[in-house]
Amino acid sequence: MGNYMESYTGKINRKLQKKQRIISVAAGREPADLVLKNAAYVNVFSGELRTADIAVAEGLIVGLGSYQGTEEADMTGKIVCPGFLDAHIHLESALVSPKEFARAVLPHGTTTVITDPHEIANVMGADGIDYMLQATQGLPIDVRFMIPSCVPATPLDEAGANLDYRAIDSFFEHPRVQGLAEMMNYPGIVGGDGDTVAKIVASQTHHKKIDGHAPGLTGKELDAYIAAGVYSDHECADLEDALAKLRRGQFIMIREGTAAKNLEALLPLLSENYYDRCMFCTDDKHPSDLLEKGHIDFIIRKAISLGANPIRTIQVACHHAARYFLLNNRGAIAPGYLADFAVVNNLQDFEVETVYKKGKLVYGNGQVADFAEPEIEPYLQKRAADTFHVAHLTEADFADERLRGVLGLVPGQIVTTDNGYASKIEAEKDILKIAVIERHKNTHHIGIGYVQGYGLQKGAVATSVAHDSHNIIVVGENEADMAEAANRVAALHGGIVVVNGGVVTAEVQLEIAGLMSNAPLVAVNDALEQAKEAAFALGVSRKIDPFMTLSFLSLPVIPALRLTTRGVLDVIKQQYI
Amino acid sequence: MGNYMESYTGKINRKLQKKQRIISVAAGREPADLVLKNAAYVNVFSGELRTADIAVAEGLIVGLGSYQGTEEADMTGKIVCPGFLDAHIHLESALVSPKEFARAVLPHGTTTVITDPHEIANVMGADGIDYMLQATQGLPIDVRFMIPSCVPATPLDEAGANLDYRAIDSFFEHPRVQGLAEMMNYPGIVGGDGDTVAKIVASQTHHKKIDGHAPGLTGKELDAYIAAGVYSDHECADLEDALAKLRRGQFIMIREGTAAKNLEALLPLLSENYYDRCMFCTDDKHPSDLLEKGHIDFIIRKAISLGANPIRTIQVACHHAARYFLLNNRGAIAPGYLADFAVVNNLQDFEVETVYKKGKLVYGNGQVADFAEPEIEPYLQKRAADTFHVAHLTEADFADERLRGVLGLVPGQIVTTDNGYASKIEAEKDILKIAVIERHKNTHHIGIGYVQGYGLQKGAVATSVAHDSHNIIVVGENEADMAEAANRVAALHGGIVVVNGGVVTAEVQLEIAGLMSNAPLVAVNDALEQAKEAAFALGVSRKIDPFMTLSFLSLPVIPALRLTTRGVLDVIKQQYI
Repeated sequence: MGNYMESYTGKINRKLQKKQRIISVAAGREPADLVLKNAAYVNVFSGELRTADIAVAEGLIVGLGSYQGTEEADMTGKIVCPGFLDAHIHLESALVSPKEFARAVLPHGTTTVITDPHEIANVMGADGIDYMLQATQGLPIDVRFMIPSCVPATPLDEAGANLDYRAIDSFFEHPRVQGLAEMMNYPGIVGGDGDTVAKIVASQTHHKKIDGHAPGLTGKELDAYIAAGVYSDHECADLEDALAKLRRGQFIMIREGTAAKNLEALLPLLSENYYDRCMFCTDDKHPSDLLEKGHIDFIIRKAISLGANPIRTIQVACHHAARYFLLNNRGAIAPGYLADFAVVNNLQDFEVETVYKKGKLVYGNGQVADFAEPEIEPYLQKRAADTFHVAHLTEADFADERLRGVLGLVPGQIVTTDNGYASKIEAEKDILKIAVIERHKNTHHIGIGYVQGYGLQKGAVATSVAHDSHNIIVVGENEADMAEAANRVAALHGGIVVVNGGVVTAEVQLEIAGLMSNAPLVAVNDALEQAKEAAFALGVSRKIDPFMTLSFLSLPVIPALRLTTRGVLDVIKQQYI
Repeated sequence: MGNYMESYTGKINRKLQKKQRIISVAAGREPADLVLKNAAYVNVFSGELRTADIAVAEGLIVGLGSYQGTEEADMTGKIVCPGFLDAHIHLESALVSPKEFARAVLPHGTTTVITDPHEIANVMGADGIDYMLQATQGLPIDVRFMIPSCVPATPLDEAGANLDYRAIDSFFEHPRVQGLAEMMNYPGIVGGDGDTVAKIVASQTHHKKIDGHAPGLTGKELDAYIAAGVYSDHECADLEDALAKLRRGQFIMIREGTAAKNLEALLPLLSENYYDRCMFCTDDKHPSDLLEKGHIDFIIRKAISLGANPIRTIQVACHHAARYFLLNNRGAIAPGYLADFAVVNNLQDFEVETVYKKGKLVYGNGQVADFAEPEIEPYLQKRAADTFHVAHLTEADFADERLRGVLGLVPGQIVTTDNGYASKIEAEKDILKIAVIERHKNTHHIGIGYVQGYGLQKGAVATSVAHDSHNIIVVGENEADMAEAANRVAALHGGIVVVNGGVVTAEVQLEIAGLMSNAPLVAVNDALEQAKEAAFALGVSRKIDPFMTLSFLSLPVIPALRLTTRGVLDVIKQQYI
């Protein structure tokens, strides 16, 4: 149809024709497009395994009984599940483009993800959201959106954009937008801040969902946050927190991702009384984690191994998320539902062998089927490739002899300690210089501080993955290498760079908004592993992830000290020191 | 605001102000409008009774904890339930106006009903739907609509209107319309009939629900019906039928009304595995049944007495229907939900003592609080009061000496038997003349036949409640009284009339479209009981309801014989005899 403006009558007539064929196939008057023969399938409505031929026409399941099809696949001995949904993810965390993300998760039975393009929106504003919408159009997984609620994450941040309710309002009319993403600014909501609450009001006015993010919020503050219109939470780390929210009506997204792992603590939620209010999400999945463990299938496997009822776990992994997001035609195997299937070997090993999306085989025999890549308009391609607006940096930009705060790293955690002050690099005491360079608007704002616990003995490490504003973070044993590393990140239009003695020893290019690569996940992961080794070779402690650790040091909401483009911040006091 | 066209910004600002007050009350910064103190309440999310103060502001529940309010009500010793929902009802069956219906059901804790204005639409077409929308606007119960899918019920009927998908399409944009009402024409759907399927397609295009009506449909036909997009069924009379539909994804409305009573047969659906896919409905509630037994509270009471888990039963009675109809802010007691409460004495007797709607006391101390009556525009008032377009009838109109089929009545059932032919009245053999008089368009179509088993020994009985087209049905021992009774029905602009020897011995005026009275339910019921006695006095068998029995004799979808405006129909063969 292209841009031809369809009449309403024409639309109904076209849909009618398709519907009549569906009815005809279901009634047995003509052969199905596909029949999964003798399928033991998970019935999410009755909570049982049943056996039938599953007939598919026009991308939908049309019947469960005895059917013939122009294509037939024997499912004897297998278990057919509805395709899995990830209820909350930031696709950018996989460091690859959406099409490569799709290639990576299809083998794990994921057929729908709900993404919050929070990272790219902090870089490109509304253009970032549009970029992701276009980059996911027509993929063999269905990518639905929650619109970022907190860009910038805090007023202290210098992000690439500042999105108020008007800036995001028109996205609510997009057919793949389900609502407003995690409302992290819970103090703003509880305090009744107009600009913050207006985003919820606007989303509700469009009859859309609002996801929450309120770790540990309790009592009247939790009441206020939920009464404001926040319908879910994915930050529950213990059962008490989760039950307090569930009893107040929130849906609980049980999160098991790369950084945060809550499944074990929340396992009791998968019991009879609570599981219908729960779904699974990953929040963030880093390349190696996706490659080594999997996606939602990994969560199911782990839950079953921990003793959860397999059928209930699968209901949580598909149908409950679908219903929450009002995606009422998926997450189940029944007439009228999307023919999205994850076929597994058995309920114990739970290895995904074959995956169908809208009745098409998209994964089988270890191979993801080819698919047409989404077309992204030239304006947005250019915009995403050109997000670094930062002048060439020199050693002098990092020269500074004032006393600056020292951020103390804690292995395995993203909190820091307040390690006092320093005025110069002392590698022998593990005191390194760290800088955050504003890179969106060429303001030449450079915040300088010190970090202890990173271990670097020579050279510098820089990254443009720097939550949530994604400025350039660089840490170094000398200012010249810091300038070189930061310049190289900008020259690559984004990425991770390791420099020693003026020479780049490793790099990972992330040319999409400085966050993602167009390369396949395996290639990006290989480059990342090599870069890690290069960083370790320069002395970085093996107790920490050289890049992930850095990427959180500019997020001014996590205690004790952070570094922004303005200097070292005491997060608790919200004061620069 | 009236007709002032609000700007989007203005709308957001007004909602924001209200939302900020809700947050402020929830956070404890200002007093609530109402607090139910020490309330043992049903938590539908965790399936348990919990105790808290329930704080209300701006008509919504805002917090569960310890709260103060400008108004407080002590709930010690009571059980607070969310207000109940009737998932499927034809309001017209109560024979009273919507405002009187509201007065009748509020004492039973009903705060939301989903009505299908099928009867009035068969009389007044789209105007009938508009009439009911206006007659329910702002009532202290929330009346939501499903738009009639089958007007007329069959092509053989002569109704007051013929509604194709275009005729009903604009109603889907009304904020109180939830979808397309019971798709009774399941043969049309299974057969792929374009005009019928188009109604489903249009409703889906508006993202609305489609309710079903398919008693006993099985196998591939059921698959076809559900694949077409029918999401629920309220016609399940046995567990096997219900489970077949539930497993295929339909929601089951457990019906317990005046005519059809399915609760006992479907009680196993209230168990752990199935109850989350179920809700309650009454379909039709006649005046005496409403007055004597109650409404949804009666179903809950009966289910509990039959051994169902009380908490689960209450979940079915409120939250499940709300979720199905995407009324996502009701049917639960939690922050952000409507402050609709039914307060009962205990879970065994389950007597409703107090009812709140949006935080206002609407029933207490045995009294329904006064409320403003909805305004119905003059055009529609006049239209509803003037639905009889039928010439004055005389004895001669009913004179007929041809052989006509004899409809045999079966006490307690609405099916008839084929009792052969007759050519004249023989009261001593209980063979009476029956006529259906087209009354919408003054066509002077009068179908004539005979009926056996009614028992009338003299006079005539006529009614304008005549499913589904609501023409005038009259049965008589002589043609003169038949003419008199039918004329009187028309003169009353609708109702039920008993005549003997040219004299009206009893009548019930139903002046709204010939279906409903503006009088209170108690008054209508009294008149009805008197009319029944008058009919019994003329010899009508006490084994049957004199008017309900008649009202189904023109419905040409129930075997064996029916009478339409065209004559006696063999329903199975779909042939006039």
